Amino acid sequence: MTSRIRIIQYGLGPIGAAIARLIAAKPGAELVGAIDIDPAKVGKDLGRLIGLDNELGVRVSDNAQEVLSREAEIVVHTTSSYLGKVKDQLIGCLNAGHNVVSTCEELSYPFRKYPELSQELNRHAVDNSVTLHGTGVNPGFVMDKLALTLSSVCQQVHGVRITRVVNASLRRLPLQKKVGAGMTEAEFKAEVSAGRIKHHGLPESAGLIADGMGLTVSDITESIEPVLAIDPVVTDHLKVEPGQVAGVRQVCRGTDNGKERIYLELRMYVGAPDPADTIHIDGVPGLSLTIPGGTHGDLATAAAVVNSIALVVKAEPGLKTVADIPVRFHASF
Amino acid sequence: MTSRIRIIQYGLGPIGAAIARLIAAKPGAELVGAIDIDPAKVGKDLGRLIGLDNELGVRVSDNAQEVLSREAEIVVHTTSSYLGKVKDQLIGCLNAGHNVVSTCEELSYPFRKYPELSQELNRHAVDNSVTLHGTGVNPGFVMDKLALTLSSVCQQVHGVRITRVVNASLRRLPLQKKVGAGMTEAEFKAEVSAGRIKHHGLPESAGLIADGMGLTVSDITESIEPVLAIDPVVTDHLKVEPGQVAGVRQVCRGTDNGKERIYLELRMYVGAPDPADTIHIDGVPGLSLTIPGGTHGDLATAAAVVNSIALVVKAEPGLKTVADIPVRFHASF
Repeated sequence: MTSRIRIIQYGLGPIGAAIARLIAAKPGAELVGAIDIDPAKVGKDLGRLIGLDNELGVRVSDNAQEVLSREAEIVVHTTSSYLGKVKDQLIGCLNAGHNVVSTCEELSYPFRKYPELSQELNRHAVDNSVTLHGTGVNPGFVMDKLALTLSSVCQQVHGVRITRVVNASLRRLPLQKKVGAGMTEAEFKAEVSAGRIKHHGLPESAGLIADGMGLTVSDITESIEPVLAIDPVVTDHLKVEPGQVAGVRQVCRGTDNGKERIYLELRMYVGAPDPADTIHIDGVPGLSLTIPGGTHGDLATAAAVVNSIALVVKAEPGLKTVADIPVRFHASF
Repeated sequence: MTSRIRIIQYGLGPIGAAIARLIAAKPGAELVGAIDIDPAKVGKDLGRLIGLDNELGVRVSDNAQEVLSREAEIVVHTTSSYLGKVKDQLIGCLNAGHNVVSTCEELSYPFRKYPELSQELNRHAVDNSVTLHGTGVNPGFVMDKLALTLSSVCQQVHGVRITRVVNASLRRLPLQKKVGAGMTEAEFKAEVSAGRIKHHGLPESAGLIADGMGLTVSDITESIEPVLAIDPVVTDHLKVEPGQVAGVRQVCRGTDNGKERIYLELRMYVGAPDPADTIHIDGVPGLSLTIPGGTHGDLATAAAVVNSIALVVKAEPGLKTVADIPVRFHASF
């Protein structure tokens, strides 16, 4: 790569800022624009805002259209988990002629939940000769890309089971609160009903595995339950009494006429004793894979996005998933 | 995929036959030709030769040129580990207008060892608008593709260590003999010197990791030593006394001015207590991954090749590695 890849950062929440910091350290990349609607961020130098010692000479703007009119190869998009909410943002990027990589969980595999919108997004990408791609650690890696890659040495696959156990004790307070740590069971259920306790992306991973491996999966369902503390749990940020909620257990099943083919389980709770990512493939040969300790959520999400940039830039035009992109780290890009 | 992929099988040793059996069971594939020079195989029906109950209506031929003149999308090539030996075979396939996937270990990443030949092969592929690809389980998966995929969630990578331990007790007699089981140390060393005890592909995997991840690796070296039995080992096929050779330990190192960046170790011996494939990435975040029991060599190699077929057919023209191909299982293809 002789010239640097020019990048616009769209969204400067914690993940967007972490991504921008990582990009700023890459010799093969150049940040040429930054978009956020937060008045506290608009007008600030991007370098200062994300905690660098130096300015980057790029001011955060809330004028997406102006920033997107700049010359760039790709937009890194980190604003929301919901595809319906970000649809117009994404189309704006594509119509400005930019490739896009996004952390929007519903974009990672939108074909089952949003078949028409998927076609529309694909058409915008193809018409503009650019690529649109959603990725991250989960969805994007643990429960889809890694399982797909493992399956490449299987002669037959009958089913896939993936468990991700995250010890929320080691994570930031917002994450501990987000999984319901310290709530009563009733409070937890109210938060689930309100849609405020929910990890996004499991059905997307199930769809990606099913369609990527050619497994017949007619139904994808999801459930969210509390994990209750048996013993007291004390973290740096809070204390959970026995009987209170320690966190969340979310299960997604992909079935074929009632027969389970895909089982995805995410447990995120304070005091989880053996955090790990585990994949089992029931097939020929049967295979298991474990990442002891698990893949670090925040670090890995930023890495997955940044590592995909050069690959997305050179990918074929269209709406592409991690099943289409041969992911890997690259030191300079 | 509406029409079936037409495939020519080039080479019908144990791996070629296993691949042909797997292809014969795929609804999306059709075997249209079979090439082997063994007089005991020539003229036989391919289905009978590979142990199917039915004939396939394809006779094994030693006339490569005639078979390659048939209409087909891809040649599956399984004749030798040495790129120099198979170069003309591969060029013949490419010039006949066929994509090629090969188990030739030296083809998996030939750019470092054979820079000029790599360019020549790439040129033939591009000129004929087809793809040339080498894969398998090792090289092709354990020590390269899986590590590259794991690295996609790393922000930094400082080094990679991979260990593959295979319990040869559970494998066929030819493999047990191939690793030197039952030999004296002197006999083993003579076999190593004669080039008859050697697993091919470790330097190729090291090069693929280094260049794929953008790690500076100036030298790649390899060593082969015996693993000596401490206790007696009895397999279904042979007995190894204490002090005799149980198998082989092969180590490949990729260094940057003496500093080790890549360490690949393959131990294949009878009585190996804990077979497993293990990858450690020294980076941010640091990550480990284990496949307990290890990836089954024979099953996985055939699977890796067959699973790559549809992806190689639609890949961009040229000489492509597993770093370029987004591998996965697919039920129908």
